[in-house]
Amino acid sequence: MKQLGSQTWEFTSRPVILGSSSVVGPEEGEGPLASDFDFIYDSLKMGEKTWEKAERVLFEKASQLALINAGVKQEDLDFFVGGDLMNQIISSSFAARKLGVPYLGVFGACSTSMESLALASMIVDTGGAKLALAGTASHNCTVEKQFRFPTEYGSQKPPTAQYTVTGSGCAIVGRNDGSVKGPVVTHATIGRVMDLGVTDPFNMGNAMAPAAADTITAHFRDTTLSPGHYDLIVTGDLASVGLPIAKTLLAKEGIPMEQTRFDDCGLLIYDLEKQKYVIAGGSGCGCSAVVTYGHILKRLRKGELKRVLVVATGALLSPISYQQGESIPCVAHAVSLESGGEEA
Amino acid sequence: MKQLGSQTWEFTSRPVILGSSSVVGPEEGEGPLASDFDFIYDSLKMGEKTWEKAERVLFEKASQLALINAGVKQEDLDFFVGGDLMNQIISSSFAARKLGVPYLGVFGACSTSMESLALASMIVDTGGAKLALAGTASHNCTVEKQFRFPTEYGSQKPPTAQYTVTGSGCAIVGRNDGSVKGPVVTHATIGRVMDLGVTDPFNMGNAMAPAAADTITAHFRDTTLSPGHYDLIVTGDLASVGLPIAKTLLAKEGIPMEQTRFDDCGLLIYDLEKQKYVIAGGSGCGCSAVVTYGHILKRLRKGELKRVLVVATGALLSPISYQQGESIPCVAHAVSLESGGEEA
Repeated sequence: MKQLGSQTWEFTSRPVILGSSSVVGPEEGEGPLASDFDFIYDSLKMGEKTWEKAERVLFEKASQLALINAGVKQEDLDFFVGGDLMNQIISSSFAARKLGVPYLGVFGACSTSMESLALASMIVDTGGAKLALAGTASHNCTVEKQFRFPTEYGSQKPPTAQYTVTGSGCAIVGRNDGSVKGPVVTHATIGRVMDLGVTDPFNMGNAMAPAAADTITAHFRDTTLSPGHYDLIVTGDLASVGLPIAKTLLAKEGIPMEQTRFDDCGLLIYDLEKQKYVIAGGSGCGCSAVVTYGHILKRLRKGELKRVLVVATGALLSPISYQQGESIPCVAHAVSLESGGEEA
Repeated sequence: MKQLGSQTWEFTSRPVILGSSSVVGPEEGEGPLASDFDFIYDSLKMGEKTWEKAERVLFEKASQLALINAGVKQEDLDFFVGGDLMNQIISSSFAARKLGVPYLGVFGACSTSMESLALASMIVDTGGAKLALAGTASHNCTVEKQFRFPTEYGSQKPPTAQYTVTGSGCAIVGRNDGSVKGPVVTHATIGRVMDLGVTDPFNMGNAMAPAAADTITAHFRDTTLSPGHYDLIVTGDLASVGLPIAKTLLAKEGIPMEQTRFDDCGLLIYDLEKQKYVIAGGSGCGCSAVVTYGHILKRLRKGELKRVLVVATGALLSPISYQQGESIPCVAHAVSLESGGEEA
């Protein structure tokens, strides 16, 4: 590994994503990326009595599917890096209990998807593990209940609100011994906490856009690459409110984002015209996880995409912090993925 | 870095702890380690209106003091790895906002102290940063309120209950260029989640003891060292209930713990005879953090201790998980510290 500039790691051994999984709920299964997901639950309950137990089932399902898709036996896995949005990342800890391997719990709110992938890639790249699983999950009903109001209340939301994705995505990262072509993880840019004073938990896109812009700017400063290096730069969950703000901020920084396609996982996962209930778009750490591990990795494997920068954004608020009048600290972590060329 | 066995990292460059800090509340200031702490608040409020804001002040104070004690300017710091017990590790995120450097949020409950030190050491050892800050905090009133009952209720507790330490500890880990003698970080053993079915949040020592024993066993299996290699092996917060259980479990595993001094941070920090209100002893991620970064590091610097293994234990429950009848998954992460010889 090599430190580039002040925020970026270059993974010189280019760790390989041997397999990944994306498991979603019914709403995501009605969205435009449905055919990219490995498993779609037809009920938000997933056969459980509580939303929290349902989220746990979702995460456990995705972690098991990732092992299957990577052709890795559970006993060969030697590391798990995971986190989620629940208090004390309890879903991740239950998944860790089932996996039974050394476990590092992480929390970056919705940026947890790329935080865990960055760390797993780093651990594999530097020889700390041979096979590491990175993963995260979110569930619409657990997250709304915990951060805002139980969905059963049917409370109204402003037009800036987003819809938490029910989904879990996991990836198995392995050492690159040349036997597998790709996709590979080449860089990670670790974000700084940005806080521009937004205090409204129904306006996450606005709060998180500066963090996304800061991390993207740092990525290009540290790597000396330009946006044209990537076919796609995709933020985690800025949605229809935050993405234009990030574009404006990046234009001010002089980053030529017009060289590439710049999109957001929260806009890709739903059809905002047909699925009106998602309001400004998707959110949650499951959002960037299932779009990356389902949609994007499938295209990298097919060679339809060559290089993608995933910039997962996280609003690091807690219900108590905003009830006590604190503003919302935000962070974004970026990971570069590269196709290994078209697979057979 | 070298992977030893299945759970241990050897930090081959031997990163140096350039400086550390330990900031505590009034109860810890009345305990036997008072003279080892850098700063003792005389009120649990720390001049703030809420317990959560007080915890944030505690963490920010400790992170600033660690920089001063290490002789490192804030602009030279290039990484922060931190976490705490609050929902969404909000205290850590606020500290990260103040530090303004790339930030990885972690969560391992009370094992967060050694999880963050292990990761910071790994990042420095493998060239991902030059100077990384690892830190954590807990506050008696925030933790009791969040996990059990607000302290203002004056609810009764069973004799197995522990007392959450009000304290924050931080360490600055830097590359070992030979100019600073020590203390150095030599190994980390990352724990697996263990769950033997304990469901009582007032009996953490019992729940966590198997995780501590599992990680200690893994450490000696992976490194082929024996307990006699260390002057002191200290668990994070097993207290008077958990430590004897861990001793029994390790004896069953055939680990000759009688070769060394085996103690617990939760027993060291208070005088259980005089401070009856702590019941079975201290707990919280601040417990192992301030004992390690205050008491133990001072003795390593003086050469009074040569080699110490700190095994921070964490109960990964959430109030919702145990209210829904789930048992308590636990984890323990161990870090080896070595004196660089007596300092002038």
